[in-house]
Amino acid sequence: MRAITVLPGLAGSVRLDERPTPNPAEGAILVRTLLLGVCGTDAEIVSGYYGAAPPGAERLVLGHESLGEVVEAPPDSGFVQGDHIVGVVRRPDPVPCPACAAGEWDMCRNGLYTEHGIKELDGFGAEYFRVAPEAAVKVEPSLGDLGVLIEPASIVAKAWDHMERIGARAKVWQPRRLLVSGAGPIGFLAALMGRQRGLDVHVFDRNRDGPKPDLIRGLGATPHHDIDDAVALAPDLWVECTGAPAVIAKAFTATAPAGILCLLGVSAPMRVEIDLGALNRDLVLGNRVVFGAVNANRDHYLSAAAALAQADRDWLVGLITRRVPLRHFAAAFRREADDIKVVIDFRK
Amino acid sequence: MRAITVLPGLAGSVRLDERPTPNPAEGAILVRTLLLGVCGTDAEIVSGYYGAAPPGAERLVLGHESLGEVVEAPPDSGFVQGDHIVGVVRRPDPVPCPACAAGEWDMCRNGLYTEHGIKELDGFGAEYFRVAPEAAVKVEPSLGDLGVLIEPASIVAKAWDHMERIGARAKVWQPRRLLVSGAGPIGFLAALMGRQRGLDVHVFDRNRDGPKPDLIRGLGATPHHDIDDAVALAPDLWVECTGAPAVIAKAFTATAPAGILCLLGVSAPMRVEIDLGALNRDLVLGNRVVFGAVNANRDHYLSAAAALAQADRDWLVGLITRRVPLRHFAAAFRREADDIKVVIDFRK
Repeated sequence: MRAITVLPGLAGSVRLDERPTPNPAEGAILVRTLLLGVCGTDAEIVSGYYGAAPPGAERLVLGHESLGEVVEAPPDSGFVQGDHIVGVVRRPDPVPCPACAAGEWDMCRNGLYTEHGIKELDGFGAEYFRVAPEAAVKVEPSLGDLGVLIEPASIVAKAWDHMERIGARAKVWQPRRLLVSGAGPIGFLAALMGRQRGLDVHVFDRNRDGPKPDLIRGLGATPHHDIDDAVALAPDLWVECTGAPAVIAKAFTATAPAGILCLLGVSAPMRVEIDLGALNRDLVLGNRVVFGAVNANRDHYLSAAAALAQADRDWLVGLITRRVPLRHFAAAFRREADDIKVVIDFRK
Repeated sequence: MRAITVLPGLAGSVRLDERPTPNPAEGAILVRTLLLGVCGTDAEIVSGYYGAAPPGAERLVLGHESLGEVVEAPPDSGFVQGDHIVGVVRRPDPVPCPACAAGEWDMCRNGLYTEHGIKELDGFGAEYFRVAPEAAVKVEPSLGDLGVLIEPASIVAKAWDHMERIGARAKVWQPRRLLVSGAGPIGFLAALMGRQRGLDVHVFDRNRDGPKPDLIRGLGATPHHDIDDAVALAPDLWVECTGAPAVIAKAFTATAPAGILCLLGVSAPMRVEIDLGALNRDLVLGNRVVFGAVNANRDHYLSAAAALAQADRDWLVGLITRRVPLRHFAAAFRREADDIKVVIDFRK
């Protein structure tokens, strides 16, 4: 079978390899890949900045945003041939930390987890992959290709889960206004889930052109292109998806009193000068929270699937802006203007 | 009666004034002041950096860390003559925000609260003050003078309340190690409550001399004098009480994965250069939380009183390092080496 592989740490090493179909020891369910989503983490791995091959292997099979069709599954697995599924990315170490042992591997304490397509575990970017039943999430058939959005949506579902739990530190917590910075797939999905909660949603993105402003409006949300206009909104919740230090520096203390800033964007090192005294004071006197969230556990995949199932299908379709056939896979890693979610089609 | 007053905004304006005893309209309970604690906020007000007089008044009666004895109370108030009480500092606006309306004025959303001795409401630094029964907290008689620690302890009780609620965003949350930076009254009380929860407690303070290291050890905690030694502990919880940007810059990402940094220290503006890209990345990939907490609601005063009642009295006595008779009140605002909590004695 064909698989997209990379030599971790070496930029430009991504290629299509011929690999044997996976061994049943890798999981009882055999899955034929339909679509593979590409995200910023894949771009980092392809650029040689991130990623680790499985122990003993040189190359890593790339890909963690999956959508596949079950080819074979054990009778008692809860899955049957033809089911659409998504693979769970992070897996606990055989000797799990207390969080991983409880299925909360997204909050792993000792860093010994593995991640398909990222860290020491081959990814889903192959024509076939195998997963254990507990690491597979069933996709509602009516979602069709949109099931490939479940993995990125799981990240956002976790962010909402934690924002709501952190918000509940106050007995009275009635957030009204959400600001999302960065209109990429994660930002759009955060805005979607904010609208699903009845919030007044605003999205900051520098780009005035392309499909993004209309997609924001299509959600009943308001686009902003000037960060200072966004800051002036004093949102109760801010989901930060740009990873841009210039935006983050403003976001820390721009929420309303008791407000929550959720950081989801991963950034490169960048030294900047900020007034840390004033920042600390504003966090303290405003009872403000800043937190980071990464990855997702099985519950988050399930709420992500539910959130997508409730969303407008036409709007969701607009998030997938480019489909690249497997043979042209390399084009998926080249960023184009107006890209939101780019997917690699394994059926072509 | 004598009252310590200040002209907000004017350094050096603090003085002893003669004032009429308070009007019953200010609260049904008449209280004779026993002790008044002095803290960093008082020092800021005395220095002219903070504080606001009541509407229509020029001067503000200072003081918010109270301990008093009930002189008269209505029969149905729950208080009788001779009861020791502490006054609640923050009061909601007559038209309260939803948080204030629910008694959670410490999480006020619109900033219209008032604060005794700080913001638009005379303080407890007078020979008599009046409070409404709902703004008075009864002190267990056996605590004696240590009741003056209830107000600062209420700030710490809130911090613990919020740390525990935020910790519970994870299904599995078993913090083991606490680091406290800054061995002032707030830091010591945070360490005390950490020990009461069975944690491995470490306290960072630059001072190697004076009574602090022994007080830290007396709690069964470990003193540290080098911030990098403290950072290397990778605590699950960090309570930051120095307000020093150099400490805060390190604290943001020094907690263990899923760790929580609680900011309690108020700092002056100070521009510093930090790697905000790396900071953001570490918050995201480590699921870390940073939050500020200020003030306390009635529930926090009650848990503060309970925590002090359970603590070793001899150890607590060591926190009150200086007692200044009212006639020498000005000495209480001059910082001396080895000061922890300085109190003004209104009986002398």
